[in-house]
Amino acid sequence: MQKPKVLSLGAPSYADADFLKEFESKFDLHIIQPSDRAGTVAAVAQAAKDAGPFDAALILMGSGAYERFDAELFSPLAPHCKIVACVNAGYSEFDLDWFTANQIYVTNTLNAVAEPTADLAIFLILAVLRDTTNKEANVRRGGWRNATSPPKDPNGLTLGIVGMGKIGKHVARKAKVFGMKIQYYNRSRVPIDEEDALGAKYCPELDDLLATSDVISINCPLTESTRGLIGEAEIAKMKDGVFLVNTGRGPVVEEKALIEALWSGKIARAGLDVFDNEPKINPFFRAAENCIVQPHMGSWTDVAWKNAYHECLGNVSALFTDGKPISPVNSLS
Amino acid sequence: MQKPKVLSLGAPSYADADFLKEFESKFDLHIIQPSDRAGTVAAVAQAAKDAGPFDAALILMGSGAYERFDAELFSPLAPHCKIVACVNAGYSEFDLDWFTANQIYVTNTLNAVAEPTADLAIFLILAVLRDTTNKEANVRRGGWRNATSPPKDPNGLTLGIVGMGKIGKHVARKAKVFGMKIQYYNRSRVPIDEEDALGAKYCPELDDLLATSDVISINCPLTESTRGLIGEAEIAKMKDGVFLVNTGRGPVVEEKALIEALWSGKIARAGLDVFDNEPKINPFFRAAENCIVQPHMGSWTDVAWKNAYHECLGNVSALFTDGKPISPVNSLS
Repeated sequence: MQKPKVLSLGAPSYADADFLKEFESKFDLHIIQPSDRAGTVAAVAQAAKDAGPFDAALILMGSGAYERFDAELFSPLAPHCKIVACVNAGYSEFDLDWFTANQIYVTNTLNAVAEPTADLAIFLILAVLRDTTNKEANVRRGGWRNATSPPKDPNGLTLGIVGMGKIGKHVARKAKVFGMKIQYYNRSRVPIDEEDALGAKYCPELDDLLATSDVISINCPLTESTRGLIGEAEIAKMKDGVFLVNTGRGPVVEEKALIEALWSGKIARAGLDVFDNEPKINPFFRAAENCIVQPHMGSWTDVAWKNAYHECLGNVSALFTDGKPISPVNSLS
Repeated sequence: MQKPKVLSLGAPSYADADFLKEFESKFDLHIIQPSDRAGTVAAVAQAAKDAGPFDAALILMGSGAYERFDAELFSPLAPHCKIVACVNAGYSEFDLDWFTANQIYVTNTLNAVAEPTADLAIFLILAVLRDTTNKEANVRRGGWRNATSPPKDPNGLTLGIVGMGKIGKHVARKAKVFGMKIQYYNRSRVPIDEEDALGAKYCPELDDLLATSDVISINCPLTESTRGLIGEAEIAKMKDGVFLVNTGRGPVVEEKALIEALWSGKIARAGLDVFDNEPKINPFFRAAENCIVQPHMGSWTDVAWKNAYHECLGNVSALFTDGKPISPVNSLS
């Protein structure tokens, strides 16, 4: 019996050798090297022609150069392909309607990148409170402390978490050891015992969370209902001099409103790992002294990659073993 | 009865109003504005002449401009002065022999700055692991991710804490939520129940800790026995590519050896809040791409300052109420 064929966009080299060996005992793995958009579109089509049809495809870390994931990229694999398994947690880069219409499962990872992303949120919370980028820049210019009054301590401040999924829960747990009071907004309330364990208070109304938080952390995925969730009206409801951290997706916060609030000082400092139109971000953020910026590094750690590759390959295994993947983001009829 | 006179080098404006009111009901508070070394030496002498003799003196935040604390600065207050109470935790800036010889208590603060300093150590640990300064610089230059492989995750790494006092214990507690394994070296082992609560393993030998830690955090005070504690021989014993964070005092690590290890890559990255000869630090650290630098900000938070001012004033109150201060760093016969 022939093993199912899997097309991997990049080598799954961060998976443990043993894990990969086991996977390859069950699947016929074809690896192509993705490049930019045009090159990757051509490479997928060529692979389908030369070595297809493929039963599954893998999208690995570093896919920013050839996003997005849509008909143009994946139609050479239809209709035979049953699953496109991705190492990311977010899936706004997928044209889900096209995959669903073509009866292709799209899967994300649930756990792998959650904790590292929360770590980066904590890093950014500490950084915006302490104003570390400006402090470091001043030392590097040959100066020393460029202030006579101290920045804010996290201890006693209220952290408002927008989106209490796996990432948000890790943020809550970690922020707690810095003495922060935790509250959250989420589509649905988390179970009371979990709330208690996290010491997190539920805000049924987003406006209430915005009005009473000293630091706001965006930890929801980007969906049609969260796009522009934080706009001009929502920022107006925040405390003056609030701190905002976004490790979710850029477009959850309306960029124009964010920039205006940073200009006016309504938002004292923002810690941003995600932006509109990455990697061609608005030049404002390159120069802004009240922003701490990172190039979408939330999921970039060695442990995250290993775990993400295992979850990604595990989704393919589960589909062909049990008839359904572990973490599909679309439902097939 | 006349109230004891207290000379404050700067206004204790970060103390709560109620706290200060209560203090001033018991003490006659004279405030002078410190400036640079020469100006402050002159101002103390002038105050002693005009309004002395003083029973106590307070050293507040921002004393870097007029350190160190010695005969030149404080002899105009001797022999009447009984205590010089300082808001800092470290006390290497004091010429303790002179104070002891003159029967003047020197007090530090025990708790106020411990947790904020630990927070900065955690910030620096996350920063060196994630290489955040270079990532941010690249974004600000108009680039994006300047790597194709991920940096290290704290999860699963071993953190070696050198100095398990109040700061070290906070570092242990906080690092634990990032999945780090904790071990420590200290003059004396902490009680077993506290070790268990912190999940920290005791290394009786410093060399053992150095050889088995992925990240090393310096959290001991600077004393004659810790000066140069980490030198060339000690660095040679560390793992290749180790990460080093120092929020204690610069001279605990021999600067020449540190710089050589950063050049060679023996130390992959260092996170430094403290340096030799602050604020005139070695220009190496201004340019080094494998350093994350801060201008000795560990104790600089609003909460730390408030608590430090309360502890500092509390030491003076305790001496005149109970006959001895709460946290003397010298013993008087």
